[in-house]
Amino acid sequence: MMQSARSRVLARSLGQSRSTLRPLQAQRQLQLRRAYAVETTSSTATPLATSSGVTPPPPPPSFTQSRWRKFLQFVGRATLITVVGGAGTFYYLAQKERNPGPQLPFDPEKKTVVVLGSGWGATSLLKTIDTADYNVVVISPKNYFLFTPLLPSVAVGTLSPRSIIQPTRYITRHKARTVSVIEAEATDVDPAAKTVTFTDDSEIKGTTSTTTIGYDYLVYAVGAEVQTFNIPGVQKHAVFMKELHDAERMQRAFMDCVETAAFPGQDTAEIERLLHMVVVGGGPTGVELSGELHDFLKDDLMAWYPELAGKVKITLVEALPSVLPMFSKQLIEYTESTFKESKIDILTKTMVKEVKDRSVVLQMPDKSIQEVPCGLVVWAAGNKGRNLTQNLMAKLPAEQTNRRGIAVDDHLRMKGAEDSIFALGDCSATSYAPTAQVASQQGAYLARALAQIARKDGMEKQLSHLEQTKQAGAFESEEQKQNIDKEIEGLKNRLAKFKPRPFNYSHQGTLAYIGSEKAIADLPFMNGNIASGGVATYLFWRSAYLSTLFSLRNRTLVATDWLKVKLFGRDVSRE
Amino acid sequence: MMQSARSRVLARSLGQSRSTLRPLQAQRQLQLRRAYAVETTSSTATPLATSSGVTPPPPPPSFTQSRWRKFLQFVGRATLITVVGGAGTFYYLAQKERNPGPQLPFDPEKKTVVVLGSGWGATSLLKTIDTADYNVVVISPKNYFLFTPLLPSVAVGTLSPRSIIQPTRYITRHKARTVSVIEAEATDVDPAAKTVTFTDDSEIKGTTSTTTIGYDYLVYAVGAEVQTFNIPGVQKHAVFMKELHDAERMQRAFMDCVETAAFPGQDTAEIERLLHMVVVGGGPTGVELSGELHDFLKDDLMAWYPELAGKVKITLVEALPSVLPMFSKQLIEYTESTFKESKIDILTKTMVKEVKDRSVVLQMPDKSIQEVPCGLVVWAAGNKGRNLTQNLMAKLPAEQTNRRGIAVDDHLRMKGAEDSIFALGDCSATSYAPTAQVASQQGAYLARALAQIARKDGMEKQLSHLEQTKQAGAFESEEQKQNIDKEIEGLKNRLAKFKPRPFNYSHQGTLAYIGSEKAIADLPFMNGNIASGGVATYLFWRSAYLSTLFSLRNRTLVATDWLKVKLFGRDVSRE
Repeated sequence: MMQSARSRVLARSLGQSRSTLRPLQAQRQLQLRRAYAVETTSSTATPLATSSGVTPPPPPPSFTQSRWRKFLQFVGRATLITVVGGAGTFYYLAQKERNPGPQLPFDPEKKTVVVLGSGWGATSLLKTIDTADYNVVVISPKNYFLFTPLLPSVAVGTLSPRSIIQPTRYITRHKARTVSVIEAEATDVDPAAKTVTFTDDSEIKGTTSTTTIGYDYLVYAVGAEVQTFNIPGVQKHAVFMKELHDAERMQRAFMDCVETAAFPGQDTAEIERLLHMVVVGGGPTGVELSGELHDFLKDDLMAWYPELAGKVKITLVEALPSVLPMFSKQLIEYTESTFKESKIDILTKTMVKEVKDRSVVLQMPDKSIQEVPCGLVVWAAGNKGRNLTQNLMAKLPAEQTNRRGIAVDDHLRMKGAEDSIFALGDCSATSYAPTAQVASQQGAYLARALAQIARKDGMEKQLSHLEQTKQAGAFESEEQKQNIDKEIEGLKNRLAKFKPRPFNYSHQGTLAYIGSEKAIADLPFMNGNIASGGVATYLFWRSAYLSTLFSLRNRTLVATDWLKVKLFGRDVSRE
Repeated sequence: MMQSARSRVLARSLGQSRSTLRPLQAQRQLQLRRAYAVETTSSTATPLATSSGVTPPPPPPSFTQSRWRKFLQFVGRATLITVVGGAGTFYYLAQKERNPGPQLPFDPEKKTVVVLGSGWGATSLLKTIDTADYNVVVISPKNYFLFTPLLPSVAVGTLSPRSIIQPTRYITRHKARTVSVIEAEATDVDPAAKTVTFTDDSEIKGTTSTTTIGYDYLVYAVGAEVQTFNIPGVQKHAVFMKELHDAERMQRAFMDCVETAAFPGQDTAEIERLLHMVVVGGGPTGVELSGELHDFLKDDLMAWYPELAGKVKITLVEALPSVLPMFSKQLIEYTESTFKESKIDILTKTMVKEVKDRSVVLQMPDKSIQEVPCGLVVWAAGNKGRNLTQNLMAKLPAEQTNRRGIAVDDHLRMKGAEDSIFALGDCSATSYAPTAQVASQQGAYLARALAQIARKDGMEKQLSHLEQTKQAGAFESEEQKQNIDKEIEGLKNRLAKFKPRPFNYSHQGTLAYIGSEKAIADLPFMNGNIASGGVATYLFWRSAYLSTLFSLRNRTLVATDWLKVKLFGRDVSRE
């Protein structure tokens, strides 16, 4: 008996789960617990002499010790299960993303949706659209989606450029029907003929490099381009923060400034000029870039270029009276005080008059003009419509009069081309701010709206078919005629009731990283707002970004990059 | 007694290590083993009735089951310990690499070593050199070391560009004394005046951008540049595979070809032209690039561009009668048969006569001329000396007559400038092949040789000091005079015996990746060679590369990239 009781203790210590015990085992378990209770209380009692001739037993381990061991055992098991299970699930999901299956071919019976663009609006639409209803063609000069809010992180080397892009085909290849993805620049949209002309504007061209195709529905989501306000020197000397190559150029230019400042014999004034970084634009991009630049200086430049540490200066220039006007006053003040600690100068009510090779000319709040020497000017001051958009609007002069962009109705239909063109994102003029969040929701809305339209189209087709049958008048019986009439009646009723819902923006909040592992967040909550700033918000910012990124792949890449920087710092190679 | 025996079993099952048991515990352990022996054998015996009134025990778990549980428990614990311990060590090492401490300042008493270059030779020297002996200045147009053998992997997106570079300061900042790292192009070396002139050739320049500094010893390790043999069109139309930007350009051009081929309406002949990749040069770079291209086609292009799959053609052109002449015949054949399976065409004894925008003109083995349409020509056909090297050699016309590069003696001293210039790596002409392995060993050798020279310099200094003391003749006693004579004698003897060892290359073997997860290796072993090819060699290739990479950081980045590609595939964005 003694031995078997021991075995049961052993069995229990080996982690037999209680919930899976069979009745007999449950009974044993009960006995065991009784025995166990004796054991734990016996630790204070004097050991008894035994009749079996074995030497007196040593005192048993205390209850605390055994609890501690159990805990360790539990941690060990949990780690093992988490590691193995997590890795398995991850691998499965990654392989599913990586290996798309076969797709249905184009269906000439279906209508064609042409999507112009591969940004937030277009990508969100592509994720949601049901290709059972349509043939889909995507045309964009970039064959990938760019996660724009993380551009400032790429500019200082926190993230690798390819971590924040995702080939458009990674989405379209998982659709039920083949989606044609064409890397080309649209050069003309003809709303009357319902055609798009596009051209391969890359370096390597084939014998065919310009084509015109027709569309039934056009999703116009071409975004915007950098607004320089025709200020002299901006185009030539400033670095933008709009496309991936801008961020890469910024990193190269920034490291060039650092290396040039480290050149032997450089005089002090020149070092100060080279290490003065001017960021123009107090929106989230400008603020985040300033914050990231500060992190780079503190975390990395200090370590590898100690001779330059403390000589770098960051100035943020904004024409409006405040940075981050979309945030609450409290968060703006929090940002300002964080920047003060980080020694980032904020110049509000200050206008850029000219950007020169080695300086920037500013008009100060008192209207005085100052020429400030600097090594680098980053231009993040706003966007304007593309030429293609202006040309398209000029073709519908009566309806398209909004200078901010394409005027649309509540269903994102371009005014003047309501039956066939939808515009969304930064190229359209709505009551919403031109943000990624708005474009993304518009894209998803439009995909659903297109599904509704497909249903309506289906009903209309059926109706006309029934009416033709009725007109032909070859009924087998009166009953059949009545049935058809009934069906026609029903369809007409459903079509009359068919009222697609208008687009409705649901604000999820605004986030911005402000450097020093701090972020700010303005979140709508119970009809009010939560304003939050600090390290906790920073962690929230990270997880929010990770969950907004489209694919498991991008999430993993970004998370790995963050870990890399934590472990190894940023790369200071001027590549 | 029963309870305590149970407790001991519990204690043991919780993994108390035997070797750490104290004597009392050891005794208990012995008892326990006895008890355990009873238990394990009792599983077949009938349970005995007991006198203590407890219900008869159920049969104990079988031995197999208990062993299995123990094994699981062990795995759980091992996982936990490995994960926690491994992560801790890794974190510690990474932080040590990342956070360099303070350094000694430049010492005007010490001699100055100027290093030109940041490639294999220079970086290996910097890793090994003892900065206690010298002030060290590094001048290179790149502020980083590039792990050249992995360039083909970057070109197809298997690796991220920044994974194979390492800022030179990551090494120099860990040296005892400050090392000056200057990002500049050396424009002139004056061996008579012992000076180097260099200029900041980057886009952003300061008021000072050209400077001349003096050296006591110059380590000349500037490498080589691409040899085009003045073949028309190579410089203009071909993509090189020498610097990091070459690999990035190749990736962009390759994806451009793919996207242009996918342009709607492209005719079949044009698609075939665009997807025909010609690699010129049958050395390791050309072979590895062809292999990597094939992997990309098979693993990634098939998934995302199914319409183009099977239309891509890779041709490897080599002027010599065989590819990879440095490998054994058996391995060359293995490579050829692997390439045949991979549908990579090898054209040997074939010369490139011209590279055009859309084709390459070849002279076939039968001397006939063929113009082959293609989308991309990658030029990996060899290197030649830089202008700087030719100019330096022209300054010592009597000694420097070797057209292959700088002639050096057995101690890597440049002939004609033996007392002050050392040349190593691809810019020098030795009996060894111009490989990374040779340059790397030369760098380490030279660092040790410089340490010997410093010792010799020290002895000479001491000798002249003693001789001065002797000449001054102000001795306190005859004994002191004799001591000095003895010391002088000893120093002279040691100096006479001072014979620095010549450089001796120790070949560690040659490796090449040939695609399809196969690699070939020619390894010297017991006076013979091991020739090996296949998947095992591929794994060896990976681990060999990982261990050759200089830092924990680069090893981690490359390993992570390999894992990323395994999980998510390569990125097909044309960035």
